[in-house]
Formats: sequence, structure tokens, C-alpha cells
Amino acid sequence: MNLKSKKITTMRGHSAEIFYKALEAVEPGAAVKRYCRVDGEHLFIGDRVYELGKYKNLFLIGAGKATAPMAAAMEDILGKRVTGGIIIVKYGHLADLARINLIEAGHPLPDKNGQHGTDAILNLARDAGKDDLVICLISGGGSALMPLPVHGLTLKDKQETIKVLLSCGANIHEINAIRKHTSMIKGGRLAQAAYPATLVSLILSDVVGDDLDVIASGPTVPDSSTFSRCMEILHRYNILKKIPKTVLNHIQVGASGKVSETPNTDDPAFEKTYNLIIGSNFESLLAARQEAESLGYKVLVLSSMIEGETRDIAHFHGAIAREIIKTGNPLPPPACILSGGETTVTLKGKGLGGRNQEFALAAAIDIAGKNDVVVLSGGTDGNDGPTDAAGAFSDTFTLERAGEIGIDPYNFLMNNDSYHFFQKLGDLFITGPTNTNVMDLRIVLVK
Amino acid sequence: MNLKSKKITTMRGHSAEIFYKALEAVEPGAAVKRYCRVDGEHLFIGDRVYELGKYKNLFLIGAGKATAPMAAAMEDILGKRVTGGIIIVKYGHLADLARINLIEAGHPLPDKNGQHGTDAILNLARDAGKDDLVICLISGGGSALMPLPVHGLTLKDKQETIKVLLSCGANIHEINAIRKHTSMIKGGRLAQAAYPATLVSLILSDVVGDDLDVIASGPTVPDSSTFSRCMEILHRYNILKKIPKTVLNHIQVGASGKVSETPNTDDPAFEKTYNLIIGSNFESLLAARQEAESLGYKVLVLSSMIEGETRDIAHFHGAIAREIIKTGNPLPPPACILSGGETTVTLKGKGLGGRNQEFALAAAIDIAGKNDVVVLSGGTDGNDGPTDAAGAFSDTFTLERAGEIGIDPYNFLMNNDSYHFFQKLGDLFITGPTNTNVMDLRIVLVK
Repeated sequence: MNLKSKKITTMRGHSAEIFYKALEAVEPGAAVKRYCRVDGEHLFIGDRVYELGKYKNLFLIGAGKATAPMAAAMEDILGKRVTGGIIIVKYGHLADLARINLIEAGHPLPDKNGQHGTDAILNLARDAGKDDLVICLISGGGSALMPLPVHGLTLKDKQETIKVLLSCGANIHEINAIRKHTSMIKGGRLAQAAYPATLVSLILSDVVGDDLDVIASGPTVPDSSTFSRCMEILHRYNILKKIPKTVLNHIQVGASGKVSETPNTDDPAFEKTYNLIIGSNFESLLAARQEAESLGYKVLVLSSMIEGETRDIAHFHGAIAREIIKTGNPLPPPACILSGGETTVTLKGKGLGGRNQEFALAAAIDIAGKNDVVVLSGGTDGNDGPTDAAGAFSDTFTLERAGEIGIDPYNFLMNNDSYHFFQKLGDLFITGPTNTNVMDLRIVLVK
Repeated sequence: MNLKSKKITTMRGHSAEIFYKALEAVEPGAAVKRYCRVDGEHLFIGDRVYELGKYKNLFLIGAGKATAPMAAAMEDILGKRVTGGIIIVKYGHLADLARINLIEAGHPLPDKNGQHGTDAILNLARDAGKDDLVICLISGGGSALMPLPVHGLTLKDKQETIKVLLSCGANIHEINAIRKHTSMIKGGRLAQAAYPATLVSLILSDVVGDDLDVIASGPTVPDSSTFSRCMEILHRYNILKKIPKTVLNHIQVGASGKVSETPNTDDPAFEKTYNLIIGSNFESLLAARQEAESLGYKVLVLSSMIEGETRDIAHFHGAIAREIIKTGNPLPPPACILSGGETTVTLKGKGLGGRNQEFALAAAIDIAGKNDVVVLSGGTDGNDGPTDAAGAFSDTFTLERAGEIGIDPYNFLMNNDSYHFFQKLGDLFITGPTNTNVMDLRIVLVK
């Protein structure tokens, strides 16, 4: 591939190096080991210390797509101190575990395996006594992998309810309030079950803003929503008659005070619970910053919380790149702009692509002919949309090279066909599955 | 008005002070005086010096909404050295001028007054000899105020052509290529007419990126487009039969080489021409930065070139504010984020508003409850959409205050009704007409 410029070729290499360093920082096993270590009889987790001699049993539980390598890391750290445990992972997302029972289950669609596994986890948590230490491992996908509707509701009832909520325009907080109030494990119920055991939850965040009560619907986190709030939501969107009767009935009974509420911050369970985020988009940005600095760039971390329509967000990054070139603001070259989060694509065309590839394509238009700019946008899970790519590169010469092979970037963008655009140019960024997920990373280099 | 917090009240005051300082820097007369001064027999303009004794005549010409105060400033500076001149302004945009003839004309729809004025300017330029100095004043609106179709075309022909181009999806560069090739004055033709006089063009930019050939269609700037390129554009969008026959005929004859091309960089006229931007969005951002720094904020100028869908751009700013609060990136509080440019609003509702008010409303959702954030977005011309406001304020408590008076920000945003939302809260930012225009400014303060 001829990238037209030695400088651009080098910068493109830099962008990939920065991306891989960012990935390394949030590799689930590495993340666990960065935050947990044993020294003699002390287990250090984050800023806490646990005296291992104090605990009769040490259980490991959890669920999520990245939980297998997290559990393997914990076994490495704790060895035979682990009494046992159960984790639920997506089919095929395995690791060799000596003491922990690994259950494969359905994701994104929950299934019976997940339900049985969750039941087993809940029983283990209930059985744990006040002299036991329970370590819970949570990562993206944990919500679907831990499905356990309250008695009287089926999985199908819950799924239908979520479908109605999604289509009526309810926001994520409203959907989660109802999700938590129809679940045996979500919204802090797992922490409640584990009480009076000591509970530590290690969390790999895959949500914008890292809100603990949102990740996997917060099984170990206080819930500020209530049954009454759920009733308000059903009224607000006028969906009382659209959701399954069993669900409506459960919420009505709950709102009348006849079912125990999800635990809020006053619940004693949370005095014995420690929730710790061990990996997040922001952590990956920090690692990216360090690598970019070591490569000689001045670095600006814009935000780890960027959402919105992909092409508008891309043009925003393009506008910053152009300002750097023109006036040296917000920082002078050689500059590296980093951002993270998860944008959306409003599909108008019928092409193939993902938000990261569309980002690179839209940005290519802004930076065309501007010396010297490289853009790399990629999903940290190695998977961008329904494609085999994690994202794509674009640079100063992307449009020029497209012109030479007779493809029109505007047409590909209009048709949401970024995959085929970058495939033809050889500019796809392909990593394969990375075994982690902290959303997307965007790297803009300007020299 | 109770803003709920003394700190927020103070910060809101700061945001307005920063905005007004930014305006001051691009007030047309002040901008002229910052770049031009007379010392003895020397006229200093930007980095050039003109020996006044060398010139027989000194003419002032130009067009644009802000040209009257620019001309008044030049009269102040040059006094009776001004031989005479002609400027075209929008109806009512007047100033007291002693030596320069002021013509009022139609904007945004060109009219006969503009046409006659342009004819007079062109004649003055043609009459200027090699020992004359011509100073041209250009500001936003100059394109519509200087309409002079080539012989054989009417104003109506040109307007119909632009309409076809706008609706076929042609981009601004393509539209301008055709605009320039059907005009007697645009695309460098004014510089050509003034040659061999010495020409200085002082430009107040109202376009994103400050491209000289785009502002007022670049009457004193080399044109890189050609008649052949115009034919390609007509073919590309398949509009040969949709535009008026007179226009098609003119372009066809031009492409066959029988009409002189617009002047490109090789034209001798440009050896005697100096184009200087004396005011721009970026200049206003620099003034804003200085004021914010003097108020104790650390400042980041993101970009003066931000375009895109307003609410996505607003959420981007919101995400940066949240990152500042959470991690001190991209800079620690007290922080001021500045950006400029011109966003768009895709109308879905039937409310009243403008892009700046919609920006403040969308951002309010992101920063709700986050201590302590103030957002001010405003149009530098003092006019946001079809309203009497320049923009609006939002802050930490905007959503809370809206809740108290029972108005739902999401509904107002969905209905593009930001004006009424902020009117009810008393949070409109009203400046009245400012007599200048360098697009929009956005100020985000975080403490």
C-alpha cells in the first residue's frame, strides 16, 4: 500500500501503537492484576486491605463477556485460597479455571442457562456467612447473562416488557428502573443476598460515564428507583396495557408496599460492599495518552463520554485538527487528540459499516489535503458494526487515494458504506476479538 | 431571578463578560483600527506599509452588512486623504460618512440597487490608475449586496441557477464556482478591474475556516475554478436542462475559451493586491480567552470551525464539561471551554428557536445537577434564528428550575422550541443588533 507520504505512514503506525497500548490497559486479566494483589496474608484491592486470615471462605462469582479472564487472574492471585465460585460467560468466551465453575449462557438474548446460573450464584451468595469474603466480577453483558425474573414472571415476560419500553421512548434510567424491579439479582439484590458476607465487586465498565448502577444493572449497587417510580413510568408512556399482565401486576403489588423494595443506600448490605471500577474507557485513554506522549506528541484527552451522531462528532474532531494546523489551538503540533465513548449512526443507506469506520470516513473529508493528519477510530472489543473490522484509518491523502481508484467518499458516506470504502483502500483496522470492551477510542494525530 | 447558587450567578456574569469582550474585538470599526494606522506619510496595514505620498488618489470601495462602520473607521484614519468611494450596505445599516458614497441595497435577496451600486464600484475600480490606492472593505453579506451578472444574464437567471444548485446537493465550492463564472465582480474580477492600481482588501470573515475565496465570493481573490469545471458540475448533478438557458449558454461559451477566465494566482493583478482578514471568529475567541483568563479560568480554545447538528455538538461540549468535573481532563477546573463556528438545526418540531438557544438547551440536559457549570451560546450578530435573542444561558440548575415551573426540557427540545423554554426561565441572552458577524460563540465554564 502506498500511503503517499513517509510521514503519514509513520503517524499511522503511531496511531495503531497508541490504540494497542490503550487496549492492553483494559485487558480484563491485566486490569484485575493492576488493582488486586496478595502480600502475605493481606489482599489489597484498590484502596482497601482485606485480612485473608479473617475469612472462612472466599467465593468468586460474577457475569459478563470478559469475566473468564478476570476470574483466571483472580485464581492466579489467590490460588488455593479460593473456596469455589460460579461465573457466567457468553458461549465460547472461556478460560481455564481450577476452582471456579464456568457456565456458558446466551447473549445478547438471555436463555435458560443464564437463568440457572444466576439462580446458582444467588444461592451461593445467600449461603455466604458473615465470615466469608465474596468477590464479584462484573463486565459488559452481565445484565443479559444474569437473567432471573421475580417469581411469577418468565424470561419472555421481561423481554417483552423491555421491548415495549424501548419502543415507547423511555430513557435508559427508566428502562433500568423497571428491569431492576422485576429481577431477583439486579438493582443491588445480589449485595442484599450476600449480606452479611463481605462483598467486593470488581467492575469493567462498558457504559458511558461509568455509572455503577447502570453497568450490568448494578447487582451490587444501591438502587435509587422504586416501585412507585416504575408505576409513574408506565403511566407516563401510557404502556400499562402494553406490557405483560404478570409484570404490571408485580409492579402494582410492589407499589402498594407488599413486595420488598430494591435496597437503597441505607441498606446495611452496602456497609459491607465495595464496588471498584478496574477498567473503563477513561483508563484506556490514559494509557493512550502515555503512549502518545512517549512518541513525542502533546496530548489532549477531550472526554471519555462522547455520544451523538457519528458524522457530526467526526466533523467536530476534524474542526479541531484544522484549528491545530491553522492556529496551534487547542494545542500546537505535534498533537494528539484522544476521545472515547460510543456514538450512534442513523442509518440512511444500505451499505456495510460501523460507527468507527463511519467516523473515519466523515473525518477524512475534513482533513483532506491538510498536512499532516491521521485519524484512527476503533471499537475496543475489536468489532465495529456487523463487520470483521474494529474500525478504520483515514488521513491527509485518503480522499486523494479514493479519487485515484475512482470511488466517491460522499457516496459511500451517504450510503453508510464505510466498510467497503476502506476495504477498497486497504485502510480497515482489523484486530480480531480483543476479549475486552470499554467502548470506542478515537485518535487524531497532527504533525 | 433566583439562580439557586451564588457561584452559578457569578459564573453566569462571567460568561456574559467574556462574550461581550469577544464582541468588542470584532466590532467592525475597532477591527479596522487594530489593523490600520497612519503615521506621518505612512499607512500601516497589517504587515505592509504604504507610502501615502506615492498615490494620486485613494479610493474606498466595498460591500457587506458591517461595511458602514468599517468605512467610518477608515475615514477617521485617513481623513481628507480619501479621494472618494462607494460602499454598498444592507438597508438601514448606515454610518455617517464624509467622503464615501453609501448605497443601501437588498439582502439576502439582491436587488437593482445592489446591481447599480456594483456597476458603479466596478467603474471606479476600472478608472483607478497605477498611481492610485484602492482600499476594499468586505464583510458578510457582500455577495448578495454586490450582484452583477455577466452581460446577457439577469439577476433572476442567477438566482434560479443558485436555487437549482442548492437543491441538487452541490457543495459550497461547486456553487461558488458557478457563481463566480456568471458574475462581473466575483472570483477576483474586482481585483482584475482595479489593476494596475494598488489594491488592499480588508475582510471581516463570516465563514467557517475564513477561506478568502469564499467570503463574499472572493472579489479580490484568485479563483482556482474554471468554466470547464463548471460544465463538469452541471453534468455531475445532471442539471444542464434545469438551469436557465442563458446561464448554460454562457458557461458553454466560456468553456470553449471564448470568454476570459476568472483570474487565477498567475494574474498580474494579484501582485498588486493584499487581502487581509481583520476580524474572524477566531479573533473573537482569542479575545474571549484573554478575558476568561483574567477572570481566573484556565482556557481551552477548541476550534473556530465547528459545524454539524446542533444538539450533537452541544452534547460533545457537555461530555467535555463532565470529564472536567470527573477527571480534570482536558484541563482542570476552574476551566473555560471556548468554541466557534456555525452549527445547523434539523427542524423536526414547530417551535421557535435558533441554533444557539438549541445548543444551550441540549447542553442543559448533559450538565444537569453537575456542580458547577454554566453554558452560554450566542450569535455574534445578536440574532439567533427568527427570534429577538442572541442565544441563551444554561447551567447546573436549568433542568431543576424547569421542573419547578412544570416545563419539560425534552419536549421543548423535540419541538425545536428553545426560545419559549428559555423565555419562561428568564434565561435568554439578548444583546440587540451588534453591527458585526463572525458566526457563533460558545462558552462553557466549569468550577
